[in-house]
Amino acid sequence: MAFAVDLRRRVVSEALGTAFLLATVVGSGIMGERLCGGNVAIALLANALATGSSLAALILTFAPISGAHFNPVVTVANAIRGDHPWREVPLYVTGQTLGAFVGVAASHVMFGQPVFSVSHHSRSGIGQVFSEFVATFGLLAVIWSCSRTRASAVPFAVGSYIAAAYWFTASTSFANPAVTAARAFTNTFAGIRPADTPAFIFAQLIGAAVATVALGWLFTAPSGKEP
Amino acid sequence: MAFAVDLRRRVVSEALGTAFLLATVVGSGIMGERLCGGNVAIALLANALATGSSLAALILTFAPISGAHFNPVVTVANAIRGDHPWREVPLYVTGQTLGAFVGVAASHVMFGQPVFSVSHHSRSGIGQVFSEFVATFGLLAVIWSCSRTRASAVPFAVGSYIAAAYWFTASTSFANPAVTAARAFTNTFAGIRPADTPAFIFAQLIGAAVATVALGWLFTAPSGKEP
Amino acid sequence: MAFAVDLRRRVVSEALGTAFLLATVVGSGIMGERLCGGNVAIALLANALATGSSLAALILTFAPISGAHFNPVVTVANAIRGDHPWREVPLYVTGQTLGAFVGVAASHVMFGQPVFSVSHHSRSGIGQVFSEFVATFGLLAVIWSCSRTRASAVPFAVGSYIAAAYWFTASTSFANPAVTAARAFTNTFAGIRPADTPAFIFAQLIGAAVATVALGWLFTAPSGKEP
Amino acid sequence: MAFAVDLRRRVVSEALGTAFLLATVVGSGIMGERLCGGNVAIALLANALATGSSLAALILTFAPISGAHFNPVVTVANAIRGDHPWREVPLYVTGQTLGAFVGVAASHVMFGQPVFSVSHHSRSGIGQVFSEFVATFGLLAVIWSCSRTRASAVPFAVGSYIAAAYWFTASTSFANPAVTAARAFTNTFAGIRPADTPAFIFAQLIGAAVATVALGWLFTAPSGKEP
Repeated sequence: MAFAVDLRRRVVSEALGTAFLLATVVGSGIMGERLCGGNVAIALLANALATGSSLAALILTFAPISGAHFNPVVTVANAIRGDHPWREVPLYVTGQTLGAFVGVAASHVMFGQPVFSVSHHSRSGIGQVFSEFVATFGLLAVIWSCSRTRASAVPFAVGSYIAAAYWFTASTSFANPAVTAARAFTNTFAGIRPADTPAFIFAQLIGAAVATVALGWLFTAPSGKEP
Repeated sequence: MAFAVDLRRRVVSEALGTAFLLATVVGSGIMGERLCGGNVAIALLANALATGSSLAALILTFAPISGAHFNPVVTVANAIRGDHPWREVPLYVTGQTLGAFVGVAASHVMFGQPVFSVSHHSRSGIGQVFSEFVATFGLLAVIWSCSRTRASAVPFAVGSYIAAAYWFTASTSFANPAVTAARAFTNTFAGIRPADTPAFIFAQLIGAAVATVALGWLFTAPSGKEP
Repeated sequence: MAFAVDLRRRVVSEALGTAFLLATVVGSGIMGERLCGGNVAIALLANALATGSSLAALILTFAPISGAHFNPVVTVANAIRGDHPWREVPLYVTGQTLGAFVGVAASHVMFGQPVFSVSHHSRSGIGQVFSEFVATFGLLAVIWSCSRTRASAVPFAVGSYIAAAYWFTASTSFANPAVTAARAFTNTFAGIRPADTPAFIFAQLIGAAVATVALGWLFTAPSGKEP
Repeated sequence: MAFAVDLRRRVVSEALGTAFLLATVVGSGIMGERLCGGNVAIALLANALATGSSLAALILTFAPISGAHFNPVVTVANAIRGDHPWREVPLYVTGQTLGAFVGVAASHVMFGQPVFSVSHHSRSGIGQVFSEFVATFGLLAVIWSCSRTRASAVPFAVGSYIAAAYWFTASTSFANPAVTAARAFTNTFAGIRPADTPAFIFAQLIGAAVATVALGWLFTAPSGKEP
């Protein structure tokens, strides 16, 4: 919890990092769809590799400043575990959410689209919602364990996990409420209909909660204390 | 052999990690086949990259708890080398096998398939069986050497090896009896006909045995002791 | 600022590294376009993965000699931050620029093209120019933060970032004035019309300047000193 | 030069590692060509990613035993630099060459091909030969610098470099005389006509020689000694 810089700078760091994350997700989706000649697998491959690579670089860049959560459920889970002060959570989440929208807008400007556009991309059904539960559970498990046992590997682990989760979940793994909200406002490859976002965010919250309980149990030593 | 948590937690850790591994293998296979427009190379590329990336993240996540074997032949080989107590082998293998089936079921639910379905994917012939021998020999060699000489590199080495072995073996490198058994119950891209599994598992056991002997010999110092 | 070898050797190191970087960018673009059967996404995927991988290897190779900037804006930003002597900047930039042209020529010889050819590849418009601003801002942020907080991760972070930025910017992320100038003289996949280069370079300079100010602010501790 | 195990074991280690390297190069080429539906870029992408990933894992696995050269020019360059005893060079090169042929045969058996078959794949012309010069120069530069300044990064650097060099050279970067000789005996994607091998090997030797001189010069401190 000892950060070298003040809260204002850390919130800007979260916003900036989340903006680049969304610019990657949305921008690489647009580029992929434009160039793939209708073969969606190639677009998704580019989308997944770009997001995983970018995420690793962004965590390396912004973690020394603000922890590089880029994700409200990560910030909240850290607070529950006592690894982040609760009083900072609202500003962290605000920074992440604003940053996410800035990132969407930035990618739209880069690719000559309207600054925002409401998505018509339907992502609903039990498979999609269960996918978000699985994706978020896994993401939180990766972060929880690596951040305690080998913090230097977190950027690589999270980037690798997300690149894989694009493919092994039916929803392409949003796993992040701020990202989900912002992706409702891009009518491109990475978009999601606003009507489908509540179920996604609900599943993400449940996935994070279950992960927090499960990993807490897994990491309990016989003495009852965390090893 | 000094684990921080009790056997029950470690078995759950093996089950959970193996479940995510199978969810990746099966789920990314389904996604790849659905999107690739008939170009199987693109599906296999996604399948391989997702599995390698996920495996690296999962080993980083679960190794501090249970060693992250996710594979009965790894657990048995460790026991043979004296790196894991024999009495824990049955529960480890049980956890891995149950986890593998849970992972298959989870990917089926995510992608809107029946919970289990018997595979009709034929994988037989001397080339396939020899491939499993080669794949498992190589996997055990990577794990044996890296875990003794540079344990921190195991997640990266195993993930990279498996992503490559998808392509350089004719069988796409199952290299894991629990994975093989569970993949018999998915009638999707990653499946294998139940009738073809005994030869696969037999070849994996032989590959692991030969690797254990060969690496033991390679790592013997002139004094006759392991260096 | 303590380098083990003299300025002459370091300038040759920058030239050699930048030559290999350009050979990668141009060469993998030619190979991609030749083999992709008209599917530009596959060509760009190869181009991006080759460039990111090569860049990581080249930084690992040449950083111990000269710092592995390979990029005039990186050298100038380092000088502004006091991390590199101003008096060496002209020779560093000259070495990088000459190296970039040597790399283009080398890739042309490898692929049986004229040594130089003027590009007809149009890359103009506000989206392209804004993309270069974003790409260079991000690159400088990655370098600034990682080089201060975890220098050993710079090769991986920069390689990952550039591979992603190929996809998330509309311009495929040149982010380097020497690279931009040299790519005007290849009439292949990676080329850029000479007329479009001034706007690219201008945007890169602005992006680097804004990043230098922004990161300087972000890394200021409450005491007013850099943490 | 202090190895923990005797020469015999080290030669077997070189043979085994080189066999897996060739099995990867040839096997992933066969798999890629079979599945790519005529889109050669996809086959080459799989071939490059498999080779780079496998190489990183194999160096991690066999370097602690024998140094993991897998390449006669690397062994000879090490001997020239005084990093490897000259008297061991013939056995190392023999092990690497035999291993390369075993690897080709193993991949043929896995994919149901004749054990050996003479290649009809033409790879000739100044562009191809110059490519081998460039590829080998770069490979030796990466190995020379990383092995002295950050030996732990060699597996990652070499794997990344080779994956990129598949794409940025016109020859797909053989960069290894043992590999070149063995690939003359596979009439598949990765093959090379026997008649084309002498020019390839000649260019590789020149590239290695020039790299040895150039890097020796680059790494000379003002005192005239290596820093």
